Formats: sequence, structure tokens, C-alpha cells
Amino acid sequence: MIDCGEGTQIQVRRSKVHFSKVQAVFISHLHGDHCFGLFGMLSTFGMTGRTAPLQVYAPKEFEEYFNLSMELFCKGLGYKVTFHPIETTETAVIYEDKSLTVETIPLEHRIPCCGFLFREKPTAPHIRRDMIDYYNIPISQISNIKAGADWITADGETIPNSRLTTPADKPRSYAYCSDTRYMKHLYKKVSGVDVLYHESTYASEHSDRARTYYHSTSQEAATVARDAAAGKLLLGHYSARYPNEDTILSEAKAIFPNSFLTNEGMVFDV
Amino acid sequence: MIDCGEGTQIQVRRSKVHFSKVQAVFISHLHGDHCFGLFGMLSTFGMTGRTAPLQVYAPKEFEEYFNLSMELFCKGLGYKVTFHPIETTETAVIYEDKSLTVETIPLEHRIPCCGFLFREKPTAPHIRRDMIDYYNIPISQISNIKAGADWITADGETIPNSRLTTPADKPRSYAYCSDTRYMKHLYKKVSGVDVLYHESTYASEHSDRARTYYHSTSQEAATVARDAAAGKLLLGHYSARYPNEDTILSEAKAIFPNSFLTNEGMVFDV
Repeated sequence: MIDCGEGTQIQVRRSKVHFSKVQAVFISHLHGDHCFGLFGMLSTFGMTGRTAPLQVYAPKEFEEYFNLSMELFCKGLGYKVTFHPIETTETAVIYEDKSLTVETIPLEHRIPCCGFLFREKPTAPHIRRDMIDYYNIPISQISNIKAGADWITADGETIPNSRLTTPADKPRSYAYCSDTRYMKHLYKKVSGVDVLYHESTYASEHSDRARTYYHSTSQEAATVARDAAAGKLLLGHYSARYPNEDTILSEAKAIFPNSFLTNEGMVFDV
Repeated sequence: MIDCGEGTQIQVRRSKVHFSKVQAVFISHLHGDHCFGLFGMLSTFGMTGRTAPLQVYAPKEFEEYFNLSMELFCKGLGYKVTFHPIETTETAVIYEDKSLTVETIPLEHRIPCCGFLFREKPTAPHIRRDMIDYYNIPISQISNIKAGADWITADGETIPNSRLTTPADKPRSYAYCSDTRYMKHLYKKVSGVDVLYHESTYASEHSDRARTYYHSTSQEAATVARDAAAGKLLLGHYSARYPNEDTILSEAKAIFPNSFLTNEGMVFDV
């Protein structure tokens, strides 16, 4: 989970994603709309009987508040919550498991803030079921073939691995760039990502405000996506001043056509 | 406002009560479902341009968390928020303005907790418009008559005040008894209130749990209402274990017929 604003536990319920799927929470910065839902969610996880540990990654400035909140509101939880302080000013791998890594992306907001880059690890090639059947290859050999082995038939013929498999999917990547001013060099950090989320608080008519309040226009978000050669751009974090986000979207699309407006409950493929 | 759980700012918006109507927030105890919405609401008040000061009354144990949260999340608000620490173990008037007083009601929960008793101050009698017209009494005299003065006509006849007014409405009172175990003597503190809110987490079949977790059954809530000779009883804070609250309501009504189930967005007259 990335960021956890007020009411997140309600949205998780609505999304039908089971609470136990949430293994780690990454907090980009300490503004309420990015973290006020954390302790309510942790309490509710406890009341619903969670036992699996949970990791919280957040700017190191959060630690005192985290400890006090845990002490006041989350005593006696039936599971362990571990706080991992983040240094928001540097790029570093802060999380790794068997399928992915998460790196910080330093951002420029009014307070310490970073984005997160999720990179899937390379996966195994796909087994060609038809060829396995054709050569009568036993199940026990499948993992060797996935790992790259050729197959030698009873007649001594070598079937090269490339005939038995199709290439692995390209590892996917997702970059989440939370609240930030436009950063000219940000695209280098997110170069080639499949999906880029970049805040777009303002339309271009308010680019002055964007600069003053350390937010971005959708043109700026689209510029990052274009320069990074991203697969698609997800826009969000719109100022409430606009009756709708038509301008925000059209201004982005003029620079980066594969741009989309996000909204509560929407789902995008990576 | 009494208590401020996660998402309260959304509910206030839905209720169409203007944000500026909220002058003071009374927090009964430091469980998340009673206070996690506070700082999000204070931030939003700031962003919508509030300038009027706001008072927060909460158990004194809240103060450190309050100060840290204000420091982290509410810097540069355009209005002043003042924290008033409450001693939950004693009955005391903690708030007074020209129309009402608010007193604490010590409760028995797992952590320091108190309820709040709102008492309207006596109001002036009602002017009888027909008599004012009949005697041609000038507008300038109305406030004297409201204050109890008789009227002397041009002929020197004295018209007693009782002919010019009808009695003031009885001052209203509302007691909010947040999370608590059944307290045998609680009725004395809320004797004669027009409306009593008393938590009723459980039906009678779970009276053991009620005692263990410092909550009440609806029978216990109704017993307090009956012994206090309250006008009506509002039930709430139901355990999620029940598919509906029919039993909670019927068990309360058997003891105190004028009992009602509360739910989000409902409005009750006092």
C-alpha cells in the first residue's frame, strides 16, 4: 500500500482486497491526506484477528509520532508492526522480497517527501505445454526447463530450451511520484517505467501556484512521462478548485497521449 | 461536536452543517474511533479559510499527542486551536457560554473516559404578540417585559407580566455517555435529562463480554435511562457481531420503551 489517507480502511473494504494482502505500507510524506488513515487501519487489522507482521516505511521524521500513536492507540495488537525510517533525500532500495524491489525517489515538496519505484524481478520463461506433451517430458523436469535446461530425448536428440519455452514476460515497473514540484531531472529516475503515477494538482493556468506550493501541473507531469518514455501516465491529486478535470487531462494528453485521470476505486493494469 | 472518529469531516460535509458551526470538540476518550478524525478535520477547516478559534476538550492524557499532531500536521492554520485538558474522574463544568454549560460525567472504560452533559440555560418567557398589540406596547419595552416587568397603561392600569407572556420553555438537556461499563449510580448524574445517549455495544446474551471489555448491554443502557427518568434513550456503538440491532432495541424497550437506535446521519430532537 502506498500512502494511507483518512478513510483508507473503508476504501480497502470497498475494494474487496483482503486485509491480509497488505504486507507493507509506504508513506511518502507527513501530510494528513497521505497518512491519517494509518493507525485506524492498523487498529482494525488487529480487531479482525490479524497475526501476520506488517512493515511501515515512512520518512524518518514520522518516527516519534509513529511511536506515540502505537503506544496510545495500538497497544496489544495481535501482530507486529515494524517501523522502517526512510531517508527521503536519497535513492535507495528500501524493500525487497522474492518478486520485487522498492526504491525511494527523492521529490521536492514543502516537507521531506519521496516517491517509490516498484520493480518486478525477472520471471521464468513460459513453458510450451504443446512441446512438453509432444516430447513426453515428465513433470519433474519442468523446473529445470524453466531454469534454461535443454531436453535430451530417449533417442539422444537434444531439444534446445528455446523450442520448449517462450520468453519470460518483461519485468514490470511502477513509479509513484507523490506531491512534488516539477523536477527537470526526475525522468531519469523513472526512465522506461511501465506506469508512472505523477501528481497533477493544477492545470497550466495555475502554474504559479504549482511552483509556490510545491505541486505540479498536468503538463509538467506529462513532460516527466514523455521524457521518461513511460508506458502510461496516471494523473491525480487534483485541486478542488476545478469543477472537473477535463483541462488537466487534455493538457497532459497534448504532451503525453497515453495519460489517464485516476479516481477513487479505479483499477489500472501495469 | 462530541467525539471525532475517522472520516468525521466527510460526515459533517454530508450533514450540511457548515464547518463554521463547529466551535468546540469534546473528546470522551483516546480510542481511535473517538478521535482519529480530529486532525484531518482541523486541517480541512484551515484549508477552507476558517479564522474563528476552535476549542478542543479532551482527557489530559491526550495533550502530548495533541501537541505533536498540531506541530506535524497543523502548522500555519489560519485560526487558533486551544487544548483544554479534562480530568475524566471528576464531575465539573468544563464549558460555558451564554446559552449552555457542559459538564463531565466520569465513566468506567478500559482507559480514562468521560461523558458530557449539555444543559441549556433558562431562556426568557415568550411574548404574547396579541396582548402587546392590544395594549399598544412599544417595541422598546419588549425586553423589559421579557425580563419580567408589568405594563402600566396610559390610564394607570397595571397589566401583570403573566398576562403579557407565556412561560419560557423548560431548559433542555442532553447527556452523552460514551463507552462505559454499566454503572449502578450513573442515573443520578443524568437524572431528568431530556435525551440520554448511552452506548449499547451488546445484547444481553453477551453481558459477560460487556463486563470484560468495559462496555454495556442495551438492557443496562435502558436501566440507566429508566432510573434517570430520561425523556428518551438513544442507543449506539453496536458490536459488528450482530447482523442487525433488533435484539438490542427490543431488549432496551422492554425496560425503557422510549428507546431508539441511532445510525450515521440520523437526527433526533432534544
